[in-house]
Amino acid sequence: MSSEQRICELTDIVNTILSESERHEIRALLDELQPFDLGQIFFQLPEDRRGPFLSQLKNEEIAELLKDLEHHEQALVLDTLTPDRITGVFNVMKSDDVADLLGELEEEKVKAYLTAMEAGEANKAKALLHYSEDTAGGLMTQEFVAVYNTFTVQQVIDHLRKEAPTAETIYYVFVIDENSRLVGVVSLRELLIAKPDTRVEDIMFERVISVTVDTDQEEVARVLERYDFLALPVVDRERRLLGIVTVDDIVDVIYEEAHEDISRLAAVGAEDRSGMTSLWSVTRRRLPWLVMLLFIGMFTATILQNFERTIEQVTALTYFMPMIAGMTGNTGTQSLAMVIQGLTSGKISRETMWGMLRQEFLVSIIIGTTCSVLIAFMALLWRGDLVLGIVVGASLWMTLIVGTMAGSVIPLVLHVLKVDPTAASGPLITTLNDIFSITIYFTIASFFLNQLLA
Amino acid sequence: MSSEQRICELTDIVNTILSESERHEIRALLDELQPFDLGQIFFQLPEDRRGPFLSQLKNEEIAELLKDLEHHEQALVLDTLTPDRITGVFNVMKSDDVADLLGELEEEKVKAYLTAMEAGEANKAKALLHYSEDTAGGLMTQEFVAVYNTFTVQQVIDHLRKEAPTAETIYYVFVIDENSRLVGVVSLRELLIAKPDTRVEDIMFERVISVTVDTDQEEVARVLERYDFLALPVVDRERRLLGIVTVDDIVDVIYEEAHEDISRLAAVGAEDRSGMTSLWSVTRRRLPWLVMLLFIGMFTATILQNFERTIEQVTALTYFMPMIAGMTGNTGTQSLAMVIQGLTSGKISRETMWGMLRQEFLVSIIIGTTCSVLIAFMALLWRGDLVLGIVVGASLWMTLIVGTMAGSVIPLVLHVLKVDPTAASGPLITTLNDIFSITIYFTIASFFLNQLLA
Repeated sequence: MSSEQRICELTDIVNTILSESERHEIRALLDELQPFDLGQIFFQLPEDRRGPFLSQLKNEEIAELLKDLEHHEQALVLDTLTPDRITGVFNVMKSDDVADLLGELEEEKVKAYLTAMEAGEANKAKALLHYSEDTAGGLMTQEFVAVYNTFTVQQVIDHLRKEAPTAETIYYVFVIDENSRLVGVVSLRELLIAKPDTRVEDIMFERVISVTVDTDQEEVARVLERYDFLALPVVDRERRLLGIVTVDDIVDVIYEEAHEDISRLAAVGAEDRSGMTSLWSVTRRRLPWLVMLLFIGMFTATILQNFERTIEQVTALTYFMPMIAGMTGNTGTQSLAMVIQGLTSGKISRETMWGMLRQEFLVSIIIGTTCSVLIAFMALLWRGDLVLGIVVGASLWMTLIVGTMAGSVIPLVLHVLKVDPTAASGPLITTLNDIFSITIYFTIASFFLNQLLA
Repeated sequence: MSSEQRICELTDIVNTILSESERHEIRALLDELQPFDLGQIFFQLPEDRRGPFLSQLKNEEIAELLKDLEHHEQALVLDTLTPDRITGVFNVMKSDDVADLLGELEEEKVKAYLTAMEAGEANKAKALLHYSEDTAGGLMTQEFVAVYNTFTVQQVIDHLRKEAPTAETIYYVFVIDENSRLVGVVSLRELLIAKPDTRVEDIMFERVISVTVDTDQEEVARVLERYDFLALPVVDRERRLLGIVTVDDIVDVIYEEAHEDISRLAAVGAEDRSGMTSLWSVTRRRLPWLVMLLFIGMFTATILQNFERTIEQVTALTYFMPMIAGMTGNTGTQSLAMVIQGLTSGKISRETMWGMLRQEFLVSIIIGTTCSVLIAFMALLWRGDLVLGIVVGASLWMTLIVGTMAGSVIPLVLHVLKVDPTAASGPLITTLNDIFSITIYFTIASFFLNQLLA
């Protein structure tokens, strides 16, 4: 049974129970469902059943349900709830999720909710609201378990039992000294096999890998991936423990970043905050790029006009123009993808950048030589014109080298300038390569014009 | 301190200790390092120090170190070890990691190692070798903790204590009935707060989300992401529990899949198994695509030859050709990216496919109208030729609609035919769109030839 079918069947059952008077029957079913399922069912239900459905859920369940929804979906759920209920939900929600949610609401509403919430919870969420959404600070939660280095294993386990219901993860216990500085970590697994009277500092792991609050989320994801951790501690400049980032949030980040890389590479603007995929929002993401590329593309027209005489005299030259421009674009797109991947995976750093460029240069010579020999032969066989074959072949050789280098140099320069290298999208590189390739091709052709006419 | 600097400093220390006679000092340092660090240090060390370095590591440490390396790196480490040592390492390695490693070795070596290994461990690895690498079966490990539904909480915790040193995760305990069928799951968190004499079936969660052995790894990743699980049970058709897939392996899968999507979109072939990034392997990944695109691109030349008379009579037509072809390619690339993302995120299914196509069609009309009105005006102003403006504008309108639809229909058709839709790369769509756009443009132009000449 597919995931979709499963949700449909569950929705039918929920809808039927809600329409009957015996609503209390629904609890047994709800207890067995995952937050993701509850969210899906909510949106599958007819609108007039959504309110009654939510009223059957506990605050904790609504908190979990909200967590994984897109922003515009969260807004729909919140609109179905009374202000009192919302405050209740916020009180039991993890502080990072509250902060994420509040970050999307109007300032007035934020203030109203923060005032209505329990002071402790409100303060935690307020603290997190200051961090930028795509940093470790914006991802972290404050519901972690920390103990002092002087605790015994038994004391730690007792402490864990108390914290288990609210902590985001109890599988790592972080060890701090009397100044709240992070000094070690111990996993629940190690605690379970250690003797109860051992001091935690004797079994803890001291070289804790941590990130600082301002670490970019891509870097956080990379560290978590490399070390296979379930959670990563976040510290300030003085190594004081501020929060943890858990692997489930990072899985979302990796999906999001991959999604963004592909969008940017294809020159599709960022999804707007509402997450709407209406006709207008899709058009708004795409049209501005196309209009910009249209204007850049007009350069090719003016360049070609300068070669008017050449084109008029040897019409056959134009036949090869789309192929040369296209191939230059293709090799540029390949290079761009290699550089973007190298940068995302952390394989390209400032030190290895020159090696990468050198390699791209050598690759472009091999690619250029192979393709240009092929095309020179094809042009010769097809048109029976040796000079045309040489002009087309020599042009393709040069444009493939220039196109490949454009596809690698441009994103690397952007990276050095600290601009997101995916701002150099495939279509932008392709359009620039149109300009380069047409200029090179007709310059070479004009140079050989007398031979071409002979 | 950056991750790179950290590894460099650690390598220096290790190298210094290894060169001195007091090698036993190294243990204190090694105990505090992560497997990822040990792997990095191995490759940073001069070659003659690598053997002595590995001889200081425990089998368990080498097993962990090997786990996250690329295949060609693993081969380098294995070559540094004696066969006896390798067998020792395999015995303590998780069965899924052993299977992954063996899957890369020659058949003879595989047999030799399996014979030398402990029978129990060898059988586990052998069982996993049958599953395809990119399915749940290929990802799963057999080191999970399962208990019978009749156990009490105390019995489960005692069992966990025993299994903790070898299990891949102890944070979920899977509950099976007397026929080994998966009937529930309970988290360590819940066990910790439950009363010791409760029966596990009274606190377990019964609607366990699971995947079957043949589920594709992308689908496994999506389920784990949606439900925020740390591990997912893998069952056969009879719901018998065969293994678990843990979140750390899934994080690697998501990175790998995103990497692959970008490579395919840019028509860069798959990284070869050796993971080599030498000049030749990079060229081998890219050149075949370019040669194929070169041949397809030659169609544009023959098409243009058919319009020889039109081109000879109105040279100005050629000025707009690169811009029209380029814009058609750009909009096609955008559509392609939207479809690929929709398919990867699971938002596009067979049911929603027609809605997506309808939306792309409407978007293409808006985009086509805007861009063609702009270009018609530009052409008119620049060349002072109303007919040319109309021809260019009308052509761009049609080619943008055709190009957008090509970018969405082609990958969707591939998807329906169960071919990976990223086989329709950006460069392929762009090259096809060159052919479409040039045919449309010159057909329209030839139709208006008399007016253009007037």
